[in-house]
Amino acid sequence: MKTGTLFGVGTGPGAPDLITLRAARLIEGAAVIAYPTLAGADSFARSIVADLIPEGAIEIVMDVPMSVERAPAQAAYDTGAAQIAEALEAGQDVICLCEGDPFFYGSFMYLFARLRERFTIEIVPGVTSVTACAAAAATPLVARNERLTVLPGPLPEAELRARIEGAESVVIMKVGRHLPKIRQVITDLGLLDHATYVERATLDAQVVAPLAQAPDKAPYFSMILLTKGADPWL
Amino acid sequence: MKTGTLFGVGTGPGAPDLITLRAARLIEGAAVIAYPTLAGADSFARSIVADLIPEGAIEIVMDVPMSVERAPAQAAYDTGAAQIAEALEAGQDVICLCEGDPFFYGSFMYLFARLRERFTIEIVPGVTSVTACAAAAATPLVARNERLTVLPGPLPEAELRARIEGAESVVIMKVGRHLPKIRQVITDLGLLDHATYVERATLDAQVVAPLAQAPDKAPYFSMILLTKGADPWL
Repeated sequence: MKTGTLFGVGTGPGAPDLITLRAARLIEGAAVIAYPTLAGADSFARSIVADLIPEGAIEIVMDVPMSVERAPAQAAYDTGAAQIAEALEAGQDVICLCEGDPFFYGSFMYLFARLRERFTIEIVPGVTSVTACAAAAATPLVARNERLTVLPGPLPEAELRARIEGAESVVIMKVGRHLPKIRQVITDLGLLDHATYVERATLDAQVVAPLAQAPDKAPYFSMILLTKGADPWL
Repeated sequence: MKTGTLFGVGTGPGAPDLITLRAARLIEGAAVIAYPTLAGADSFARSIVADLIPEGAIEIVMDVPMSVERAPAQAAYDTGAAQIAEALEAGQDVICLCEGDPFFYGSFMYLFARLRERFTIEIVPGVTSVTACAAAAATPLVARNERLTVLPGPLPEAELRARIEGAESVVIMKVGRHLPKIRQVITDLGLLDHATYVERATLDAQVVAPLAQAPDKAPYFSMILLTKGADPWL
């Protein structure tokens, strides 16, 4: 029997019509769909494409526990990878959903690392939250020979400071509870006027505000754009 | 009469099925489409979505001349912006095509800068060549708290060297004729084994190779991925 193919499918930043035609076609034709959930919460990736999932599709759910230790999360991905492998070996394709893009901070990398040696894996790239937030904020990111730096908000304060200081346009991901720390760094560097806060880009609940006015408690799906202005040569 | 809306629409990295559902819907319903061409060459953005453009749609083509001086290109965008403004004022929506994402090194920023004060502009983000190349190369870009640096290949050698040296995962855009210079910098830094060359990602003519084996003369639509390996905690 022919072994199935594993598809790592980016579902984009959140709006259901910002998935690609390829992603939509794969999901609409899926017999087996897989995705992780965090500590039993609903899957954001699944919610984006819920209307496209065929009735009767088998769903492999990897419930990843919230833990500072690595082992419990690793065990969840081990179990999920084994279930996916079983379906692939039975000749079924498996569509694994991942918000944004699978290779850009995507949970799919955990499965890719576990299954790449044994199976054919195809990645379907998706629109990332980086450009979705730039669109939402009406803020061009980079033009011509400008540089872009992407930083995760959980980085230590000193590293954030050093990286922002040496950068041009900056995107800070995974802001969440790190917002006060990040805002302090940006304020200290005299860049607060250049910083925009974006929460839940492209969803109905989208928030765009100057960073100075952002809430202290930000959700995980929030981002800060820091640019002195992409210059397209007016 | 109601003024039209200008849509800056990302058409993604090249494969026609990697555009978003929103982009497809807008293009299929377009009465006026706009895009730049470089020195009379065909528009790459238009070629991606050619099959979706309705018969009879008006096309506003901005022919941007190749020139080291700014003025001729600026004049081409001035003329294009005036034509687009005329259509908007006549109540027509205008769909402006841009390969990749409009706010990520996109030509649309030139029109955005000229028209943002006068008209409603909506940006439709697209899949960028960054994640398309990572998918093509089967190379995860960034996981967990890793940093990503995006550098344009035309940057001076000393700056490229300094930026790559201080970075984690790096994507170098717009490689083209700068390939030998970039390869020298990466070799000097002892990173050649971590570098992958990707040309025309997602198109039939796609090339993926270790940078060591890349051609000296690369096309404009080529990229170098430099990563010591995104680490998803196996």
